[in-house]
Amino acid sequence: MDYNKKSLELHRKKRGKMEIKSKVSLKTRDDLSLAYTPGVAEVCREIGKDVGNSWILTNRANQVAIVTDGTAILGLGDLGPEAAMPVMEGKAIIFKEFSNIDAIPLCINSTVPDEIIKFCKMIEPSFAGINLEDISAPRCFEILKKLETELSIPVFHDDQDGTAIVTLAALINACRVTGKVIKELNVVVNGAGAAGIAITKLLLEQGVKDIILLDSSGTIYKGREGMNNFKKEISKFINKKKIKGGLTEAMVGADVFIGVSKANVVHQEMIKSMNDNPIIFAMANPSPEIMPETAYAAGAAIVGTGRSDMPNQINNALVFPGIFRGLLDGRIKKVTTKMKIDAAVAIAYSVNPKKEKILPSVLEKKVAKAIARVIIKSKTDK
Amino acid sequence: MDYNKKSLELHRKKRGKMEIKSKVSLKTRDDLSLAYTPGVAEVCREIGKDVGNSWILTNRANQVAIVTDGTAILGLGDLGPEAAMPVMEGKAIIFKEFSNIDAIPLCINSTVPDEIIKFCKMIEPSFAGINLEDISAPRCFEILKKLETELSIPVFHDDQDGTAIVTLAALINACRVTGKVIKELNVVVNGAGAAGIAITKLLLEQGVKDIILLDSSGTIYKGREGMNNFKKEISKFINKKKIKGGLTEAMVGADVFIGVSKANVVHQEMIKSMNDNPIIFAMANPSPEIMPETAYAAGAAIVGTGRSDMPNQINNALVFPGIFRGLLDGRIKKVTTKMKIDAAVAIAYSVNPKKEKILPSVLEKKVAKAIARVIIKSKTDK
Repeated sequence: MDYNKKSLELHRKKRGKMEIKSKVSLKTRDDLSLAYTPGVAEVCREIGKDVGNSWILTNRANQVAIVTDGTAILGLGDLGPEAAMPVMEGKAIIFKEFSNIDAIPLCINSTVPDEIIKFCKMIEPSFAGINLEDISAPRCFEILKKLETELSIPVFHDDQDGTAIVTLAALINACRVTGKVIKELNVVVNGAGAAGIAITKLLLEQGVKDIILLDSSGTIYKGREGMNNFKKEISKFINKKKIKGGLTEAMVGADVFIGVSKANVVHQEMIKSMNDNPIIFAMANPSPEIMPETAYAAGAAIVGTGRSDMPNQINNALVFPGIFRGLLDGRIKKVTTKMKIDAAVAIAYSVNPKKEKILPSVLEKKVAKAIARVIIKSKTDK
Repeated sequence: MDYNKKSLELHRKKRGKMEIKSKVSLKTRDDLSLAYTPGVAEVCREIGKDVGNSWILTNRANQVAIVTDGTAILGLGDLGPEAAMPVMEGKAIIFKEFSNIDAIPLCINSTVPDEIIKFCKMIEPSFAGINLEDISAPRCFEILKKLETELSIPVFHDDQDGTAIVTLAALINACRVTGKVIKELNVVVNGAGAAGIAITKLLLEQGVKDIILLDSSGTIYKGREGMNNFKKEISKFINKKKIKGGLTEAMVGADVFIGVSKANVVHQEMIKSMNDNPIIFAMANPSPEIMPETAYAAGAAIVGTGRSDMPNQINNALVFPGIFRGLLDGRIKKVTTKMKIDAAVAIAYSVNPKKEKILPSVLEKKVAKAIARVIIKSKTDK
């Protein structure tokens, strides 16, 4: 199917993908008197007396803001806030379909971290959580960190932790299928933006043997020039052999390739230089780093991409509905490392993994429920 | 009916009044590939190339933000942003029901005009218009004025112009019923906040004979102490006889009383001191300045309130759905005085006025359509 053309047609015909729906009737004077004036005044007074009542008398408890500045849209880069809306509306309807959360896309006209932080603080009274989205690194790290301290509602940057969680889930099952062991893996992560850094951190937590992380200047190693603070920090824990160069050098002897950056950068020779049964997660969107059939032809044992139209879709759409359902229902403020790992395990063990089915389909609604359960359970665990 | 209790029950049971709904199906992989990745990328690219495409490829063209800081909620005053949400959700579902507009309530955590202005500019890429709501005077005047210049989408402060338009519509028909003539009217307006100032300005445009405007210190007259710039400016055009004192003094010989401030401030003696066939618009919410039966007993010819449960509801719910439908469909940036008057006339002439039916019901859907038509027509008129 020509998804580009068909998708354009769909968006043009429907004029976007989401709308507002009333939960109450507005057909009679009594309806109006209850939903609006005079009855609504008493509801306002109750919240005025105790802000906590906003969680039970309005839609707030089920409402999440999706905030983006449009600087890192899919793999397309900085196209501006207006151009981010189709993705945000897509996320909003996925939220609704898979975890019944009402998500509001807010594509905003500023790329200044302090302004984005201020913005999120200003909308806090209307929402139960904030999903940061498609905000480019390294600004996204600073924004997330500050908001985690300064907001009283949970904030989650899907491109960081959502991607890290689904990648770990996929890796757990790829290991189950190939017989590899997480702690013995040499991993290459291409892309040191939001997703690449978060994936690297979570895999380090899981004790993988070594990770080579690459940015647009090549492999990252301790002491390399031209690194921001986040790369400097992580460089201390990765690339133990201080491999220098590009993907060609990095992939030699690796067990796993994880791509979260540019399309078409992986070639068959690179895969042939990897260890036996190499695992390839070519997750750049919309075009992967290498097409699955090409990777399999070069000897890949398992290939996944971010796309809905290919097997082994490794997409955070599998993660964020359940994460937020858990955060909201558990009234949890912060996503801990334990929650991320528990969520990844819950996703992995919701399927009996096979070569072309290492993850449940994004369409399986039980997954969000399973994630929500472990998130809520994590709250009470020590 | 005990609206307070019933309304609380309704809000608690439904947990607010609005939710998100998808306009597309998300049941298959193909659905996901079109609504989300990979297909959505092409839609993003099209908007990236030309921001104008956001009006046809996303829900933006039908989407309005309702922005409030919760400082002037109904007649309840400053209860904070969380407490404003029940009113904003009420407006959102009225928008949807009566003009099919998708309105998003954003109750924000700042009362600083510059921050509210900045906020509105930040959300501009996601919306086709902004409805300011329940922001207290005089900050609301400054905010509206700046945004009208600095935004490329229309902004409308419903408490100012929505209330002014519906009040003028009601007054036109009250005159048709009583045989009074607009240009010969002496009018008293109680409350010099957002609504009071806007009503006064619009009635002056219509050439009423004189208006006495009162704030919490009593009648406003040129040279009085303790006035903000907006009151100072308007004081030049009103209260020609420089009447001093309170409501008791102001109402003597008046034809019309318009209340947009505090409950229970009008007494029967005041009505008895007015001209023959006095017109009483007791629009304070949720409790009017005087109850209709009491006003009629004192000789009122026509009484209206803001409430849904009484005859002659004079409420901006009759106005804002149609105004925005017109602004959005006509891609109109600014609401002109002519549009306001045309809208008031359209409302007035959509009903055959009688004593207890000077306005169409808020529930009559044809009204929004009639308003939208004249707004769009005004654009091309010279």
